[in-house]
Amino acid sequence: MRILKSSPKADGFSMPAEFEPHYGTIMIWPERTDSWQAGGYAARRAFVKIAKIISRSENLTVLVSNGQYENARAFLPPEVRLCECTTDDSWARDTAPTFVKNDAGEIRGIDWGFNAWGGLEDGLYFPWDNDNHVARKICDLYFKDAYNCRDFILEGGSIHSDGEGTILTTESCLLSKGRNPHMTKAEIESMLLECLGAEKIIWLPRGIYNDETNEHVDNVCAFTAPGEVVLAWTDNKNDPQYELSKACLDTLENATDARGRKIKVRLLPIPEVPVCMTEEECSELDLWDGEPTRTPGERLAASYVNFYITNDSVLVPQFGDKMDRTAIEILAECFPTRKIEPIAARDILIGGGNIHCITQQVPKFSNL
Amino acid sequence: MRILKSSPKADGFSMPAEFEPHYGTIMIWPERTDSWQAGGYAARRAFVKIAKIISRSENLTVLVSNGQYENARAFLPPEVRLCECTTDDSWARDTAPTFVKNDAGEIRGIDWGFNAWGGLEDGLYFPWDNDNHVARKICDLYFKDAYNCRDFILEGGSIHSDGEGTILTTESCLLSKGRNPHMTKAEIESMLLECLGAEKIIWLPRGIYNDETNEHVDNVCAFTAPGEVVLAWTDNKNDPQYELSKACLDTLENATDARGRKIKVRLLPIPEVPVCMTEEECSELDLWDGEPTRTPGERLAASYVNFYITNDSVLVPQFGDKMDRTAIEILAECFPTRKIEPIAARDILIGGGNIHCITQQVPKFSNL
Repeated sequence: MRILKSSPKADGFSMPAEFEPHYGTIMIWPERTDSWQAGGYAARRAFVKIAKIISRSENLTVLVSNGQYENARAFLPPEVRLCECTTDDSWARDTAPTFVKNDAGEIRGIDWGFNAWGGLEDGLYFPWDNDNHVARKICDLYFKDAYNCRDFILEGGSIHSDGEGTILTTESCLLSKGRNPHMTKAEIESMLLECLGAEKIIWLPRGIYNDETNEHVDNVCAFTAPGEVVLAWTDNKNDPQYELSKACLDTLENATDARGRKIKVRLLPIPEVPVCMTEEECSELDLWDGEPTRTPGERLAASYVNFYITNDSVLVPQFGDKMDRTAIEILAECFPTRKIEPIAARDILIGGGNIHCITQQVPKFSNL
Repeated sequence: MRILKSSPKADGFSMPAEFEPHYGTIMIWPERTDSWQAGGYAARRAFVKIAKIISRSENLTVLVSNGQYENARAFLPPEVRLCECTTDDSWARDTAPTFVKNDAGEIRGIDWGFNAWGGLEDGLYFPWDNDNHVARKICDLYFKDAYNCRDFILEGGSIHSDGEGTILTTESCLLSKGRNPHMTKAEIESMLLECLGAEKIIWLPRGIYNDETNEHVDNVCAFTAPGEVVLAWTDNKNDPQYELSKACLDTLENATDARGRKIKVRLLPIPEVPVCMTEEECSELDLWDGEPTRTPGERLAASYVNFYITNDSVLVPQFGDKMDRTAIEILAECFPTRKIEPIAARDILIGGGNIHCITQQVPKFSNL
């Protein structure tokens, strides 16, 4: 693996859309007992279910600690490659590299800086040094070169690409004090364009209410095709999500993409009944540094937008809510060639994210 | 990765010779401060030199601890793949899988039991559980299935294959109390034939004097072609090695291989001056459990037979001895199409083995 100091754009590389063909997917086995309820067992069942669906149509690699290797191996299907890697938690979307691709079909990884969603300002755990080293190790695993962008703090969940020059992101996250406070918005935009080989950034103002990532875009809005997005939505003006989604919709209705297209917006409801932590769930989470990481009644950032697109399917979070079915129907319309796979996702959501947050795609590539 | 309970022979798989085409090689970054002098720095220099030569003609993967990843990455050439893996030490020959191949060119790994060269009987360190798990993890890394042979204790350094049905091994090692004492010689032979897809075992009685592996074959005798071996040798009847080598020569002169050929034996001298630990070297080795792992004056098992064959070269240990040159010349004659690469090997030898012990070949394969 070469560590590259040039820029993807200068080298002719750009970020494909998630719905373009994958070589595979990366996940990380959940283990952290202050993130995952009851020692991680519940989350692991959901991860295994997801792993089975993903590995049906692409090469799935799951990273795992030394201590959990044999255990995870026994639970995961044999098609899955299990590789030892020390991490601080299991958010492959945010710690794995963002892969970029050139016209020859070669891919390279971007090794962003990672500081646990805000570092000492408003980050979610400390330390995060193992997570910060994951991206480079993954590039090594795949025999792929890595762009050294460690000076720039970014998580994969805070960007979406349409594969045609347009990047979606949120101001609430990228302009937060815990990311790159020494840079202006213009400088951050320029960095994104350069690293992702893109032409245009669409800045959504906000994300999902109470989303502790400073409102990652991947929980609120996602491309389903070039020029088309789904946006998390509620018609309930008394719900704190309403203002956030409305501000995003206003932006999208006035935006054009890198190709000059207007954006077609499909509204994807949030669960009708807010998903909140129960007392029992809180009692099964280890404390961190003597303090609880979740409190009873706390509203979780439940959103159907946190789906993941594989070569043959779309994995959609389900919360036991009336809107589960509606979300499935809307996404089935967005992805007519893929099988829609509903996944009971509460046990993942408790960790702080969802299916998209625990996966990272590796685009199909020509360089072996 | 599937974990297989069938036998390689029954499945049509057998062990290729080391001189057959490789896909690549596996090594493990040295770190253990009671094995490697001065915190491993000296050994690392030698490992890096070896890595550069190997990666010239094949895919080299080096396993490394989490803590050493960034350091090793900086020293190793970019062509080398560096993968995190927890190990107890750096003897890839003995802890990595033995790969077997079928007529379609597919390969699978054998996951032997590993107990640090003798377990609680006369093993060299404790615990060894990380090393015992390495082989399976490596199969996973390469997307290859693994035969579960963990109930049978064997190190890769204790076997050589001619790729045509003949296996070389030593009685001193395979019949030692620390390996498989519950099995008869006939049972062990049958297990080897079944696992390696072989037809004949040539049992050499002994190995190299003071070789703490219970005299692995890979330090005393190696195939250079089907029907041809080199044997570590001394004409000095006062050297304790003389009797050991003579016993091996007697066996070889009376042996035929699986194809019924007589064995052509080339004698490869051992260093004229025994290679012994100095006081300074001993002072730079950490104690283990309060006890020294080496003592001043201790004779090391220096042998030129512990060379390693890559696709384009043969890496030959050198000890600053008059015989260094002779060994190079003999091996150049054995391998006329390969470049002979002399490697100053004292810093590896102090760890207890040599170039062959720290490498394991992955045969060229067709199954991706």
